[in-house]
This record gives sequence, structure tokens and C-alpha cells, in this order.
Amino acid sequence: MVRTASWVLKKHFEGFPKLSDFELKEAELPALNNGDVLLESVFFSVDPYMRPYSKRMKEGDVMLGSQVARVVESRDPAYPVGTFVVSAAGWTTRFVSNGKDLQRMIPDWPNELPRSLALGTIGMPGLTAYFGLLEVCKLRPGETVLINSAAGAVGSVVGQIAKTAGCKVVGSAGSDKKVAYLKNLGFDVAFNYKTVRSLAETLKEASPDGYDCYFDNVGGAFSSVAMEQMKKFGRIALCGAISLYNDKEPQQGPYLQLSMILKELCMEGFLVTRWENRKEEGLKALLKWVMEGKIKWHEHITEGFENMPAAFLGMLKGDNIGKAVIKV
Amino acid sequence: MVRTASWVLKKHFEGFPKLSDFELKEAELPALNNGDVLLESVFFSVDPYMRPYSKRMKEGDVMLGSQVARVVESRDPAYPVGTFVVSAAGWTTRFVSNGKDLQRMIPDWPNELPRSLALGTIGMPGLTAYFGLLEVCKLRPGETVLINSAAGAVGSVVGQIAKTAGCKVVGSAGSDKKVAYLKNLGFDVAFNYKTVRSLAETLKEASPDGYDCYFDNVGGAFSSVAMEQMKKFGRIALCGAISLYNDKEPQQGPYLQLSMILKELCMEGFLVTRWENRKEEGLKALLKWVMEGKIKWHEHITEGFENMPAAFLGMLKGDNIGKAVIKV
Repeated sequence: MVRTASWVLKKHFEGFPKLSDFELKEAELPALNNGDVLLESVFFSVDPYMRPYSKRMKEGDVMLGSQVARVVESRDPAYPVGTFVVSAAGWTTRFVSNGKDLQRMIPDWPNELPRSLALGTIGMPGLTAYFGLLEVCKLRPGETVLINSAAGAVGSVVGQIAKTAGCKVVGSAGSDKKVAYLKNLGFDVAFNYKTVRSLAETLKEASPDGYDCYFDNVGGAFSSVAMEQMKKFGRIALCGAISLYNDKEPQQGPYLQLSMILKELCMEGFLVTRWENRKEEGLKALLKWVMEGKIKWHEHITEGFENMPAAFLGMLKGDNIGKAVIKV
Repeated sequence: MVRTASWVLKKHFEGFPKLSDFELKEAELPALNNGDVLLESVFFSVDPYMRPYSKRMKEGDVMLGSQVARVVESRDPAYPVGTFVVSAAGWTTRFVSNGKDLQRMIPDWPNELPRSLALGTIGMPGLTAYFGLLEVCKLRPGETVLINSAAGAVGSVVGQIAKTAGCKVVGSAGSDKKVAYLKNLGFDVAFNYKTVRSLAETLKEASPDGYDCYFDNVGGAFSSVAMEQMKKFGRIALCGAISLYNDKEPQQGPYLQLSMILKELCMEGFLVTRWENRKEEGLKALLKWVMEGKIKWHEHITEGFENMPAAFLGMLKGDNIGKAVIKV
């Protein structure tokens, strides 16, 4: 009998999540039927979206999330033992699948790349950067882009795609180490929003003409300042709002409608699932850029499934440079 | 020597404009050169945009705005005496033009229509409704549209265009008389936002499935509630923000980013000037709908140039049903 360990949401988060909101549970897995496979998680992802989406869960549910997993027992010839897949089975070490909810790794995955990138730069966060920048921001060569949370899994890819498109890229991050990382990635300007004297002045200095595109991972107060620095007909892609996820009471800020009218700004919220049918195109483009060295990647790896809640909290606090990954 | 009377901005508005912020001044006009015409204003327009745009003026400037005017003396054969034009000469009874800033009335203006409609339903406000609804909201047949300030010059046209497109139209206005007017125009649901018990519940009851499009003339607190009632992939056209124009301190409300992401909403501010090159198309469509009885119009007429500041204040307070016009 095969056993699995899972982190469940013991208690709905109130404000910033706590370790005590999670509980580690063990369970027995059912025997495999014909067509089933048994999988073992190899890498887990922790992502900001898990915080708002946890509201849709019931207490006691296995935490939602995705992993790279390996087939360890198979009654489905399409998935022989040793096959690697991406799955959304949640925070659980082993699971049984009938194959329908599994995504194969991109074909010809290069040996030199860790498979964990399928959870990051060549996975959902990379696709989020790709479609958000190209389809929502509708970035054009030579434009100026502002990105916050720029050293994160999505932001760091956004900035590098924008550089391949010949754009000027300005990035905000929360530590000097992250700022150094962004400069190393080729960002034209990078700054630590926690230590600048004035965000408005910093943004103005970085691009006195303003910004054509603003790729927003943060929302809230940062955005209210950034919106005032947009150029006429600027586009704002709302990808995340990490500054708002842990609110007990909704935060407030100035209404943006009047500036949006006078400058004819367009602000659009998006989820990467919108481009499910173009996933292959996106993954291929990202893989190509990675192999060409045009997109560099960095992972913040936490070892041990037992440390997964701590890794999640650390990611929400901004401990990670690049993608936060848990290695089992 | 020809004299003119003008209303000038004596003092920049602080909060809600006051009559004492305006001053009536007289002046002599220069003699006509070759190519010049002398015009006499016949109808003036007062519009919400004048409130925010006044910030760009200097104290002592003639108030900005447009009028229907008639050529009373001409040294330009292209504009013989008796020609009617639309001009943006501001709040002034007579003025000299070299013709470059004049717009001819739409050709074959029907005798049965007052020329003042060129300032309203078949003019800038009508075009604002037309392009905002079709190009920004990207309205599709069968969708549900929410319009606030719906009995105003723009809102009333938006609702009627949406009805011609086979849409369900829900309108909000500030008096029971306006609500009756909207029902008469064919709005499916109309309500008085000042007297409903709960705006959220009223919106939900009017369209339990939510709204595909929200044509926003008001901004501020109304919008924060309306945004929660949008359907997935809803579009919000920001046309005006009359609830914010008179702020001394910026009003605040909850940040909208998170709902915009989860529902993938798109919010765009716009100015009708964007479609300057499609003006003729828009005016022809509006004229056709008016002649077919598909778009009804209503004017709130103030008699006398001397009452123009009061008419402006009244319009900002919402005294008008349909277009606020001043007849000289």
C-alpha cells in the first residue's frame, strides 16, 4: 500500500498566512486501475496566486498548486515509468492519476536544464510574462516598460522579453541584491522601492517621458503612483496584486478614473489560462530564448517537502530572487 | 466697431464652481481681413469636461467651450453670410475667424431638427457615446450594458445605441423624472441611485448574471460597486468621472486591481478626439438613427447668454435631462 503526505489548509488565512494555518497529513493511495499511473512529486512551485485562490478552498483541502512529477508505477502505456510531467495535484508527495490532468514536459527538454524550469521560466510564470507583455501590454519595439516585483518569477522574464524586443526596461524590487540581479539581467534601470526617497521622482528620473507599458504584479499604492507616470495611450497589464492579497480590510487609494480618461489609459486584468490554446507557442519561444541565453533564469530552492509552508510564506515576503521552488 | 461679450474664468474653481468664479467682459473685435468671417453665437453647450479642463486655463481666459454660430459678415467666399458652423471659440457672443477652426454643419441638415443638436446628440456628446460604446466597450449584440448618468447628453445616446444593437440596457440617474425619461427611451431597467436601498443589490437584481459592459460617466464610489457586478471579460469605458471633478482632496476607494485580475476586466479611458478621422461616419450614423426615430433627443434649454454660468453649475448638479444648451 502506497502512502502520501499532503499539506492541507487547516485554517483559512487571515491577513498574512501563518505556519499554523497548514497541517501535514498522511493518507493511503488507492490501488491503480487500468489506465492509471502513480506519480512522485519531484519539484513543487509556490506562487503568489495561491494566496487569493486559497479563498476558494475548503478548510481541510490539500493546498492547491502544481509540481513536476515522475511516473513511478504505470498501468498506462502512454506514460511509462520514468516519464516526467507537470501536474496540478496540489501539495502532495505522491498521487494517482488517470492521465487526463497531466501535462507532458515540452518535447526534447534539454539535458542541461533542470526540469524545475517547467514550473518557472518555461512554465506558467514564463507564459504569464509572455502573454501579458505581448497580448495585454501589446508591447512595441522601442517602448518603455515599467515592471514591479521585477526580480520575481514573472517580472524577471517580462523584463528580459522586453529587452529582446528592443525596449527600455525599468524594474522595481525590494532589496539591493535583487536590484543587482536585475542589472545583471540587462534592465536599463532598477531600484529598491523600499529605500528610494520618492517613488514618483524615481520613476520620473528613470524615464522622464513616462511609460508606455506598466506590467503590474503589485497593485495598491505603488500603482497609484505609477499610473501618474504613464504616457498618453499607456497600457497597464494587471498580472498580480501582491500588496493586496493579505488585506483583512480592503486598502484604499485615490480613484484612478480621471487620470485614465485624460491620458486615455487602458488597464486590463488577465489570467494566463486565457491563452491555454497557445501554450505550446509560448513554451517553445521561452525555451528558445533560454537556450540562446536571451532569458536567464534563477531559482530560489527550498529543500524538503516539510519546509513547503515556510517556502510559501518566504515567497510572499519576497525572500526569493527568481522562481521559488521546493525540491523534495 | 463690433463688440463682443465673453464669460471669463475670473478665479480657478475650488471645489464646486461658484457664480463668482466667472466674470462677464466686453471687448471690441478687430476689423475683418480678407479671408475672415464675423460670427454670432446662436447656441452654446455646457459639458462636464469643462470642469477638469478649466485647470489648464489661466485666470482671465475666456471660458472654453463650443457653440453653433452663424456667419454675419464675410470676407471668405467659402463661408457666405448665413452659414451655420460649429466652433470652439469659447463662451463669447461674437468672434472673428479665418475659417480654419470652424466645422461645417453636417450637409443636408434636416429643417425639422434644431441646429443645437450639433452640440449634442448629433455632435460631440453623440460621437462620444458612439465611439465609446462601439470601440471602447466593443459592445456585441445581446450583451448587457450598465450606464450611469444615463439621462445626460452622452448616457441617453449610449443606451439607445445599445438598444439598436439588441442589448439589454440598465441605466442609473439621479431623479425619478430622469428614470421615467429613461424608461420612455426604452431602457430595460432604470433606477434612481439616490433613493435605492443598496446600489449593489439594485445592480444585481437588474442583471443577476452581471454586466458585459459598463459605460462610466461618474467614476468614484459608484464604480467601485459596479465593478463587482461585471461579468468575466467585462469591458469598462471610462468616459467621465463627474463624481470626482469637484474634489478639493482626491477621494479614495478600494483598489480595484484584484477583482480586475480575477475577472480579467478591461478598463479604458477615452476622449472622443481619438476618432477625429471617423467623425463623419459617426455623425451620419447618429443623424440616420435620429431621423429613423431610433434615437430620441431631449434638450434642457437655458435662455440668455447672461445665464450661462448658472446653466453650467446646473448641469454639474444634474439639473438637465438630455443635453444642456444655452440659447442666446
